[in-house]
Amino acid sequence: MKMHKERKAPVLILSHPQMGENIGSAARVMRNFGFRELRLVSPRDGWPNEKAASLAAGAFAKLAPVRVFNTTSAAISDLHMVFAVTARMRNMEKPVFSPAQAMPKLAEVLAHEGRAGLLFGPEASGLENEEVARCDGIVTYPVAADFCSLNLAQAVAVAAYAWRAFITQKMPTEPEVRPDENPLASKLEIDNMLEHLQSELSAAGFFFPVEKTTVMMQNLQNLFSRSSLSAQEVRTLRGVIKALSQGRGKQGRS
Amino acid sequence: MKMHKERKAPVLILSHPQMGENIGSAARVMRNFGFRELRLVSPRDGWPNEKAASLAAGAFAKLAPVRVFNTTSAAISDLHMVFAVTARMRNMEKPVFSPAQAMPKLAEVLAHEGRAGLLFGPEASGLENEEVARCDGIVTYPVAADFCSLNLAQAVAVAAYAWRAFITQKMPTEPEVRPDENPLASKLEIDNMLEHLQSELSAAGFFFPVEKTTVMMQNLQNLFSRSSLSAQEVRTLRGVIKALSQGRGKQGRS
Repeated sequence: MKMHKERKAPVLILSHPQMGENIGSAARVMRNFGFRELRLVSPRDGWPNEKAASLAAGAFAKLAPVRVFNTTSAAISDLHMVFAVTARMRNMEKPVFSPAQAMPKLAEVLAHEGRAGLLFGPEASGLENEEVARCDGIVTYPVAADFCSLNLAQAVAVAAYAWRAFITQKMPTEPEVRPDENPLASKLEIDNMLEHLQSELSAAGFFFPVEKTTVMMQNLQNLFSRSSLSAQEVRTLRGVIKALSQGRGKQGRS
Repeated sequence: MKMHKERKAPVLILSHPQMGENIGSAARVMRNFGFRELRLVSPRDGWPNEKAASLAAGAFAKLAPVRVFNTTSAAISDLHMVFAVTARMRNMEKPVFSPAQAMPKLAEVLAHEGRAGLLFGPEASGLENEEVARCDGIVTYPVAADFCSLNLAQAVAVAAYAWRAFITQKMPTEPEVRPDENPLASKLEIDNMLEHLQSELSAAGFFFPVEKTTVMMQNLQNLFSRSSLSAQEVRTLRGVIKALSQGRGKQGRS
């Protein structure tokens, strides 16, 4: 996979967050998914906040300095596209997107040197209508109809992951890693292993009636061929066949 | 869009969770995204747990009763496909999936009346190799290279959302056909087959030195778990093991 330089990501804005723990958890999870910039609107307990630091697992050291604003309006004033993340339906003429629908729109803004943001409301009350009205759209999660109660940091986790999933899925896909020291078995190695198995099974009287030999061996071949066996694994299987069949001889159970 | 009835969802298994708060947060977020069944393997602080209840926002009342097991093996024994959710790369022959790649595979198992699960490790140490070895694959998140530190409940949030996003975005398409007469083996059936194999290999002196038993059995487990064995194939393999080790009709070579 070609390395890509770290992409720009949307700004994350928490409006009137109450608990420092949630701010810290939000910082932690957003940084995992490549976000760099956190803004706070009037955090209830002020800023900085010890409880936020204790839940952040060191994320604040790896984010841009957190910026604090008095109003949501001020916090988003330099942004070009902002979506409000909210579960509640509002009587408001706003387009509503799933995370998977919203992220490409934000990415497009960023790709054109614009600035984008995701706005989250406070724990208890959620975003005010006035705040949602300032946004370009609403991002809503596909939650269960009978249980819709996401914690603030969980809501941030979902949006942050959805963003990252979008921008990484567009990257050239990485082939599944098979370490170089563990190459696939050749078809010949697999055939030889199966012949060894068939010969020992024959000797043990496994194929009965004998006419079923072909179909039974095909079943075993199918089973192993689904595994994409490595050469080492084929050697292991031959060791298993040898041990079981010779063990039988040596220990003379019959 | 046609309404679909509430779908079955994978079982969520937390191995050796330490903090009740994380169990409660995991329960809360999983229920938002339609999961119903939570299993715990040896929770450090026992069960039930007050701190879990206080963080769950009432989710436990809307989940099936939480089941507690002593071992991961027991917790997944009735499941047919289980993915380990872990950030760490392991020197292990397992397919690695993004959440978006993994969820369709679990959905397919559920669509054929099988049972599926997602396994999460404890906060500090993560899953043991032995636990990962029992799984059918690894689910890894596209986290930033320089900050990979998800909280347990955040990890659950991401997987739960990814599941929900998949099943809600995609209306039923024709599932890949796995004939009903050919159901997947349960983990218990596979474990029993592997125990049978281990016991016969032990008797045959295969494990030398004896300390290598665990890693050699893990290699075999990995190999077979990649095959998504059917119950019939497990029976065939047991016939193979029996025939090789005992012979049929007392054709023993000794």
